Amino acid sequence: MTMEMTISEAAVFLRENDGYIILTHSHPDGDTIGSAAGLCLGLRAMGKQAYVARNPEVVGRFGHMVEHLEPPDDFIPKTVLSVDTADSALFPKCFGQLSKNVVLSIDHHPNNGSYAKNLLVDTACAATGELAALLLGALKVKLTHDIASVLYIAIITDTGCFRFENTTSRTLRIAADLIDTGINAAAINTDYFETKTLSRFALESELLRDIECVGKTAVVFLTLEKISNTKAAYDDIDGISSLVKTIPGVEVGITLREESDDSVKASVRTSPNYAANSICSKLGGGGHARAAGCLIKGDISQAREKMLNAVYDLYPELK
Amino acid sequence: MTMEMTISEAAVFLRENDGYIILTHSHPDGDTIGSAAGLCLGLRAMGKQAYVARNPEVVGRFGHMVEHLEPPDDFIPKTVLSVDTADSALFPKCFGQLSKNVVLSIDHHPNNGSYAKNLLVDTACAATGELAALLLGALKVKLTHDIASVLYIAIITDTGCFRFENTTSRTLRIAADLIDTGINAAAINTDYFETKTLSRFALESELLRDIECVGKTAVVFLTLEKISNTKAAYDDIDGISSLVKTIPGVEVGITLREESDDSVKASVRTSPNYAANSICSKLGGGGHARAAGCLIKGDISQAREKMLNAVYDLYPELK
Repeated sequence: MTMEMTISEAAVFLRENDGYIILTHSHPDGDTIGSAAGLCLGLRAMGKQAYVARNPEVVGRFGHMVEHLEPPDDFIPKTVLSVDTADSALFPKCFGQLSKNVVLSIDHHPNNGSYAKNLLVDTACAATGELAALLLGALKVKLTHDIASVLYIAIITDTGCFRFENTTSRTLRIAADLIDTGINAAAINTDYFETKTLSRFALESELLRDIECVGKTAVVFLTLEKISNTKAAYDDIDGISSLVKTIPGVEVGITLREESDDSVKASVRTSPNYAANSICSKLGGGGHARAAGCLIKGDISQAREKMLNAVYDLYPELK
Repeated sequence: MTMEMTISEAAVFLRENDGYIILTHSHPDGDTIGSAAGLCLGLRAMGKQAYVARNPEVVGRFGHMVEHLEPPDDFIPKTVLSVDTADSALFPKCFGQLSKNVVLSIDHHPNNGSYAKNLLVDTACAATGELAALLLGALKVKLTHDIASVLYIAIITDTGCFRFENTTSRTLRIAADLIDTGINAAAINTDYFETKTLSRFALESELLRDIECVGKTAVVFLTLEKISNTKAAYDDIDGISSLVKTIPGVEVGITLREESDDSVKASVRTSPNYAANSICSKLGGGGHARAAGCLIKGDISQAREKMLNAVYDLYPELK
């Protein structure tokens, strides 16, 4: 049985306990890592013992936020927290028993499951980093430069640097408070948003060379051959599925990624009037209203056929 | 002789006068158009007669902000204002005598010339739209949905949607106030930043196919042939010069654009340690510290040679 807490109740809880370990989710993004780091530093500023559990999946551009916050081998956690993790199935396997003993889950996802004893959730927050900033405010923790940097990264990575529809006026005001600590926001923005590798450029141009536009639906084909030709790394491919939706007039953008085992991973991005998750659930997948996915058995042309049928079944007007 | 005004002095001035016409600059961007529209609507809300002078160069994506604010043929302006225009040479020619009779110039550029009787300038503002919002605040004008929309466009177009280094915490707080009027910020962001035409994609991929990386300097060649092959429109080419700087490790990015009259337009973008305007001034051009340009006589390979020499003369370490 999970108890939902208010921000002030969560603040009381964090003041009363100690020996914290903070868990992040699998395929960690800037929000889970930045929130964990910010919360950890905030708890330490309160005199608490706090660490971020080592997540072996952290990629290079997020690692610097948490590498120095990992617990020593002999640390025995007393209080397990989680950030930005809606379901215990989303933890990396190596967290083991820790995953089953979360005492407080701090999150902004609407569907946070009841895996933790206590839950602090605010779905109006654009990022868990926004909620962490509010929580540290309730705890009267002074925003240092270090805390502000990681929370800023958490917020911009979950909002596309304030472009996505989850950005509210509160998000901007919290970001303003973080900037007032003296962080170099422009340099952080450049690191996360204004750089594009040559291999990513090459991959985009390869993909767009044979994009298929069928009415208001567009399909791009991310074949193994293209990935290998352009020497694209994992980081280059990450986020490519939003590319096709940037073309004016495209209401449904489908990215088909060939896997090595005769299956195809489909990513769907839609305009507000079309439900990406409804399209994908026809093929056993799921996700959010405007961003969803599914795994299809067969080759890439079969996957194309199945995906287009799913789109047209639901939305014949797009044909 | 130009008198510099404070915001409150400018507010008094605007309360005391009437019969306003607002001038925008040549090659109008979102900031000059949005600021003009916001100021015009604000003055009207105060009961004043106010119009935005018809600027024949306004492109499609900005036109909707000012089309309905143009003066009738029989309007005789009493008070000429200008927004976002640092020098009277930057007005479209068709403004004629109006350009010479500006009574108050409202701007955020550091080098605003003394062409107007009075000057309200704040270089700490990321956009003239930010300054216009402060001015309307001093005038106690209620931010309506219409005013907020155009000022929001002014601010995001001059800050790359809050990514550029001119963005301050004040910029974000003002944007938050604008969002609180109920504007659909996400839809505006998508319109201005998340759409990319197929021809723009094609142009980018053409350009990146033969990009030249010489150490930390990169050069792209925007030839007449490539523009014609990719069917790129003016809007597609606009902004292409920042492309080359997005590649990690590039400190100086040069875009050479072939003109039809045996000349080449060079655009230079630099990292903080290198001065784009110093590079361009060696070839008779100029601009800002990190974004500058010049016009070079000759063909594109001669222009390449001259530009690289200018870079290496100033910064031999980049060789």
